[in-house]
Amino acid sequence: MTLTGKMLIGQHATSGNREAIRAINPATDTPLEPAYAGGNAEHVEQACALAWAAFDAYRETSLADRASFLETIADNIQALGDELIERAVAETGLPRPRILGELGRTCGQLRTFARTVRAGEWLDVRVDTAQPERQPLPRSDLRQRHVPLGPVAVFGASNFPLAFSVAGGDTASALAAGCPVIVKAHGAHPGTSELVGRAVAQAVKDCGLPEGVFSLVYGSGREVGIALVTDPRVKAVGFTGSRSGGIALTQAAQARPEPIPVYAEMSSINPVYLFPAALAARAEGLAQGFVTSLTQGAGQFCTNPGLVIAVAGAALDRFISTASELLPEHAAQTMLTPGIFKAYETGVGALAEHAQVAAKGSAAKGPNQGQAHLFVTQAKAFLANEHLQAEVFGAASLIVVCANDEEVHQVSEHLEGQLTATLQLDDDDLARAKALLPVLERKAGRLLVNGWPTGVEVCDAMVHGGPFPATSDSRSTSVGTAAILRFLRPVCYQDFPDTLLPSALQHGNPLLLRRLLDGHREA
Amino acid sequence: MTLTGKMLIGQHATSGNREAIRAINPATDTPLEPAYAGGNAEHVEQACALAWAAFDAYRETSLADRASFLETIADNIQALGDELIERAVAETGLPRPRILGELGRTCGQLRTFARTVRAGEWLDVRVDTAQPERQPLPRSDLRQRHVPLGPVAVFGASNFPLAFSVAGGDTASALAAGCPVIVKAHGAHPGTSELVGRAVAQAVKDCGLPEGVFSLVYGSGREVGIALVTDPRVKAVGFTGSRSGGIALTQAAQARPEPIPVYAEMSSINPVYLFPAALAARAEGLAQGFVTSLTQGAGQFCTNPGLVIAVAGAALDRFISTASELLPEHAAQTMLTPGIFKAYETGVGALAEHAQVAAKGSAAKGPNQGQAHLFVTQAKAFLANEHLQAEVFGAASLIVVCANDEEVHQVSEHLEGQLTATLQLDDDDLARAKALLPVLERKAGRLLVNGWPTGVEVCDAMVHGGPFPATSDSRSTSVGTAAILRFLRPVCYQDFPDTLLPSALQHGNPLLLRRLLDGHREA
Repeated sequence: MTLTGKMLIGQHATSGNREAIRAINPATDTPLEPAYAGGNAEHVEQACALAWAAFDAYRETSLADRASFLETIADNIQALGDELIERAVAETGLPRPRILGELGRTCGQLRTFARTVRAGEWLDVRVDTAQPERQPLPRSDLRQRHVPLGPVAVFGASNFPLAFSVAGGDTASALAAGCPVIVKAHGAHPGTSELVGRAVAQAVKDCGLPEGVFSLVYGSGREVGIALVTDPRVKAVGFTGSRSGGIALTQAAQARPEPIPVYAEMSSINPVYLFPAALAARAEGLAQGFVTSLTQGAGQFCTNPGLVIAVAGAALDRFISTASELLPEHAAQTMLTPGIFKAYETGVGALAEHAQVAAKGSAAKGPNQGQAHLFVTQAKAFLANEHLQAEVFGAASLIVVCANDEEVHQVSEHLEGQLTATLQLDDDDLARAKALLPVLERKAGRLLVNGWPTGVEVCDAMVHGGPFPATSDSRSTSVGTAAILRFLRPVCYQDFPDTLLPSALQHGNPLLLRRLLDGHREA
Repeated sequence: MTLTGKMLIGQHATSGNREAIRAINPATDTPLEPAYAGGNAEHVEQACALAWAAFDAYRETSLADRASFLETIADNIQALGDELIERAVAETGLPRPRILGELGRTCGQLRTFARTVRAGEWLDVRVDTAQPERQPLPRSDLRQRHVPLGPVAVFGASNFPLAFSVAGGDTASALAAGCPVIVKAHGAHPGTSELVGRAVAQAVKDCGLPEGVFSLVYGSGREVGIALVTDPRVKAVGFTGSRSGGIALTQAAQARPEPIPVYAEMSSINPVYLFPAALAARAEGLAQGFVTSLTQGAGQFCTNPGLVIAVAGAALDRFISTASELLPEHAAQTMLTPGIFKAYETGVGALAEHAQVAAKGSAAKGPNQGQAHLFVTQAKAFLANEHLQAEVFGAASLIVVCANDEEVHQVSEHLEGQLTATLQLDDDDLARAKALLPVLERKAGRLLVNGWPTGVEVCDAMVHGGPFPATSDSRSTSVGTAAILRFLRPVCYQDFPDTLLPSALQHGNPLLLRRLLDGHREA
């Protein structure tokens, strides 16, 4: 398949006419062909018109048909084979096994949402049957289901060119909910985006769906993004990226005549707590696990452990010295883009102004290679300096040394919202952990015991979300099957004749859903 | 019980020191004792500090204890007896039977939420058990529950001094979710608010809960409201009132360093569609039902039928002439406040500039009495003039005469978001109704067949919500048990030992919840 450099407005491959995006192979610092000319507001208008025209038909596709569409997307992406893998490796600098794993995750995620669609629990069907004899007033027949919000704009992430991009979690969950999707491709991997976008568009065609169910646009400046978020036919936004980018989109969405929800996953430093007994028993093992988690994928994970919190003492010293011995063994790794590498260097420089450097990974040997950094500071300094909890995207972490448990609590209360918080503990730490849990439950979307935050399972129970600024909406998750709930709203049907009811609500329950019927969940 | 004119900061009755609010009996235009001196930002600060201090304990109360608390509130409100009824009648001008009905609804609502809390479905427990042998990577044990967002600020409505006020749906659902609540009393019924507030505070004491679970503040200007919405410890807002008020609160909440959700129910004109066969068969009966719904409670309902849409013809003429004959028989009714009465007069005046007056109710015979108004316009005029779909709070409605079905669709697509849409239809109208449904599902939260939109059942399937500007968040309902979902967020627990897990997630399932276990809903 030859890359064309074109956008997909529905089924139409269309050339942009604004400044072109060109991927750069960060490992070699060389630009990759072809150029992707940016779209303009008119292209967005066309994509939105198609999405709007497709919406009413797409949202009433049967559960089986919609699930089959998601599976067809997965099949089509897998059929791209080596071309996709090689392009993604070239555009991101990520190693081939990592891209292969991400491909599996992406296709698995689409199939998981297909199962979720078929099961239909997301419809949240509630039925209160009529009580014509009730005193003082009769009760009507009332039936509720969830319907999709409308066309969704998706902004892919740089760090997961497949799993959080064109056919990633946001797209999969929005399509699962019944929303057409317009993706703005991330400028770092336009070729990967084109390949995946064509696989999705092919699935639209394979399944006989209206073409507006999916479009893919490119754009370098703000024009395309703002046009998408402010188009009156776009009813929700999914975004994974920087705090400033997420806040800008949220503000644009709120300033619309009709404000719309933005699900922006933005910024998290993912505190790791090393409790005393665990630290005493296995400081060295913890240091090893920590360094592995920190340096994996050049630290370019939303859930990278960017903060370690522990009480001062000999055991913490052992942890720091072991981590400091291990870190120099870790080679600098190519980062995703020259821009991300520069931002990492800037972030590390800023931390170095306010905290001590404990250790560094081995130095860069090629362009755009991020050198891991481990910093140490005291709790009082951390509490006094907001800069110390700014996210540095990459393999940098800060150890906050606390004088006592009280300082651990103070530091915890001082934290902004997080995607994750990790507790390393042994049995003797349970009381301490229990005392801290209420704080952590308020601060983070996912709490882990004796693991590491990198690695996010796609399943029913996952929460990849958390209080601001981890995300713009703590009520949601962007990973896992509950992500579908972001794109739905309830509608109640009162005294409808069966023939006018959607099948999910018909008296005979033809979809065999487990409804909440007169206050009781059906078995 | 003597009214004190004091706020309740937790268990402490506290006098404000800002300009006083004084209720006015709208039926006589006379002020009522006592004066309620307004609070200031410092009072809000105290209430927020107490709410924050109470949050971690309150949110972990057992399901049984929390349900019992809600029931105690209901008992305490009912025990207020005649004093409450009389004060509410005096402050609102609403007839005694209406207030009695609303009292029953308010207490029933609290008891309904008690049942919802006990059932525990709102916890949305999801468990994915560990798969240590999975290839290529093992799966952790992952467990999700929902936790409350934090303290909630509630702004009561003028038109339901009990059911949408101090202990109304917002308060009941937030308390059910585990959120402490700080209510800003509506200035129109401060005495009713004090009585109910004391009943809630007494329930806090009766149940041995931390005092910060509930506070009640007063304030005339913006100071108290803005202080509440911008306090960092307040994590969500419930509001029922005007479009301008709701938008102002939403903007203040979005401008915070940590933006928070605002559930504002604002503005709706609740279109009623009269389909041809129904109109031909029963124009007179429809007119009667319509006039009853329009004039009930002086039209002071969020779901008042403010818009009627039908195709021109003899049957519609019969509907209009019958409604026009019936309307003058309806006495003008005392409106809630002098301000609401003045706004109604202004709104009616504005409609009269742009549409024809078809009929009026009988003229006012006392102060603040709203005279019902029925207007008629043509679809083309409606489409050309945004003023014609502005909500006029009171017994005013506009009939939009369409030339044909195509104009009915154009008018429908032109509508803003609505709480309700009503279809009056007979069998021969089913195809027309079916064609319109996709539009209405996009526009409204509740769709009714052959009923009238006034009257909102408190049950599982109810949706009292809808796209902007009906509400600020179409994903939610403010009436019915699903209202609890507004105040919750998911948290995932990964590889937690049983002893650290909340009871809802423990391996033995001690709360006997129907969990989503490894992808299957437990029976």
